[in-house]
Amino acid sequence: MQDYYAVIMAGGGGTRLWPLSRQSRPKQMLRLGRERTLFQQAVERLEGLFPPERILVVTAREQASHLQAQVPYLSPQNFLLEPMPKGTASVVGLAATVLARQNPRSVMAVLTADHVIQNTAHFHRLLRAAYQVAQEGYLVTLGVLPTYPATGYGYIQRGEQLGEQNGLPFYRVVKFKEKPDEATARAMLEAGGFDWNSGMFIWRVDRILEEFERWMPDLAAILSRIGKTWGSVEGQTVLQQLWPHIRPETIDYGIMERADRVAVLSAEGLGWNDVGSWDSLFEVLPQDEHGNLILAEETLLLETQGTLLFSEQSGRLMAVVGLEDIVVVDTSDVLLICKRSQAQKVREVVKILSQSGKNHYL
Amino acid sequence: MQDYYAVIMAGGGGTRLWPLSRQSRPKQMLRLGRERTLFQQAVERLEGLFPPERILVVTAREQASHLQAQVPYLSPQNFLLEPMPKGTASVVGLAATVLARQNPRSVMAVLTADHVIQNTAHFHRLLRAAYQVAQEGYLVTLGVLPTYPATGYGYIQRGEQLGEQNGLPFYRVVKFKEKPDEATARAMLEAGGFDWNSGMFIWRVDRILEEFERWMPDLAAILSRIGKTWGSVEGQTVLQQLWPHIRPETIDYGIMERADRVAVLSAEGLGWNDVGSWDSLFEVLPQDEHGNLILAEETLLLETQGTLLFSEQSGRLMAVVGLEDIVVVDTSDVLLICKRSQAQKVREVVKILSQSGKNHYL
Repeated sequence: MQDYYAVIMAGGGGTRLWPLSRQSRPKQMLRLGRERTLFQQAVERLEGLFPPERILVVTAREQASHLQAQVPYLSPQNFLLEPMPKGTASVVGLAATVLARQNPRSVMAVLTADHVIQNTAHFHRLLRAAYQVAQEGYLVTLGVLPTYPATGYGYIQRGEQLGEQNGLPFYRVVKFKEKPDEATARAMLEAGGFDWNSGMFIWRVDRILEEFERWMPDLAAILSRIGKTWGSVEGQTVLQQLWPHIRPETIDYGIMERADRVAVLSAEGLGWNDVGSWDSLFEVLPQDEHGNLILAEETLLLETQGTLLFSEQSGRLMAVVGLEDIVVVDTSDVLLICKRSQAQKVREVVKILSQSGKNHYL
Repeated sequence: MQDYYAVIMAGGGGTRLWPLSRQSRPKQMLRLGRERTLFQQAVERLEGLFPPERILVVTAREQASHLQAQVPYLSPQNFLLEPMPKGTASVVGLAATVLARQNPRSVMAVLTADHVIQNTAHFHRLLRAAYQVAQEGYLVTLGVLPTYPATGYGYIQRGEQLGEQNGLPFYRVVKFKEKPDEATARAMLEAGGFDWNSGMFIWRVDRILEEFERWMPDLAAILSRIGKTWGSVEGQTVLQQLWPHIRPETIDYGIMERADRVAVLSAEGLGWNDVGSWDSLFEVLPQDEHGNLILAEETLLLETQGTLLFSEQSGRLMAVVGLEDIVVVDTSDVLLICKRSQAQKVREVVKILSQSGKNHYL
């Protein structure tokens, strides 16, 4: 698989883990109770499948040096900088363009920098299978078999089985579905035939560039012009000049929901989680016998259950009495206390702060 | 009423408002959302009834200078220092002994330093009436007509009416009752004839010293020896020598529950509150339209009701989502989050910290 490249999308900000994630400290830089940051985990789980020279990290200029310091075995050549955020379609397109120039037969795995994957061996097995399916010309998306009626994930509806690779079946994608409400999520889980959309994709660069030309011709034209000068002295100038003209779009909406020959490789037991809210930490970290998740130095709990206590302040005592299913996040300038079932509303808090000009808390 | 003296007991520590109240900052030094500390309020509400020279503050040595700094119109002569805490009986006895030497006809009002009284005019009216009743030889206790089945207060059972003074009736005390459970509190409220025990007493010094001799002869003997040298050069030496031999006791248990001729002057509309728990702040401070009590600089509340947000940290944002009837107290080294209905359990938290040697949080 020497044509196989990993493209890690690490440009996101992410407000759903506010106040820990900030503009100056995006989600992929968080540790969240583990020794390694989410970004370090994202890179390190590639070991044994992608050698460093076939790993590309796409990120924003202001994040690049922080990210590179976290993975010293990667060099600046591993980093591709987007001049400004223009959505995932442009990021994928730029990476595909760069890889196509390097090796026209490249197969790229588009991976996330801020998710948790607990079963690395299975992840490798899936990526190997996806490589083979992608070689047949499919745009492969990694689906995750749902275990509960999540409302925080998008869904993929599976069609007929297209084949099997390394013992893993893959299916035609019927439809991508936005994050559902509770009732719809329940109905999908009961009906079966739906996967969570993990946001990870595998395809040949020639195939995805074809799709860009068909569905996003404006972006394709810009990418083509960037590609022509890439690696030459004027390459960066052209990139900086053209990038601002890109209309922001996601790869999901721009390509995946329209393209033909989209296949889903359905993963079970991957231990995948997008850590998209404070509540989701309960799915990936061990709890005490009362279901409490303690990520703080000094705590004292009385009659408390299902509660997350997070503090990054050393020597500070968190004493709680009679709490049930509450999230407490204690940073130096912000204290967040939130009912777990309303953890998604943190985005609303961030929005209100932004609208009222209190950006120093963001 | 030139024989009338106010004795403010200001020696208490108080752990029920932890983590705001500390060993180094007892409850009477707290502001609790007002401009003046509880101690300042306790002294200032005497204006117009007791001139400064007839106010005595009994406190511990380590608190005296802090307290005096808060009330510059009092001088060191207004402060009486207990060498070490030995319960309220000894404090009352010492004050009575000192006042008796100064003026044998003294009537003393034993007042608290860490309670809230919202209706000062009515408080003065009560104290004036109590002075007259005390002149007749009664030990007068101020009762507060209950407004709900409180479990945090002791109760006083009223007997027959003994008379009326300034339009205020006073009754024989049948019995003092410890803090009741919820059911007992309800039963007393329904039955009627019970007052909350405010912990404030008014009596002639000769009468109370008589009772000390009868019910607490050991303490009376020590007080008598202290009295004999009081004001002389050896006065302080005698006090320091004898005080350690006192057996700790409360005035309630040591005298009030045993003595004859105990009367209760029953107060209604006094706006009295002992601020004995975080929950009780809701009884004395105004709330927003959702019943939230905000004592913090920067807050953001979504779908939250009946919740107290207290922070003494400047510039810190408290963002809360979906909370109901929760107390949040944020100090520089401790964060307390407690269900309001379990606010009494703060004492248990303090006990656990003390037992585990974490005294730096106390």
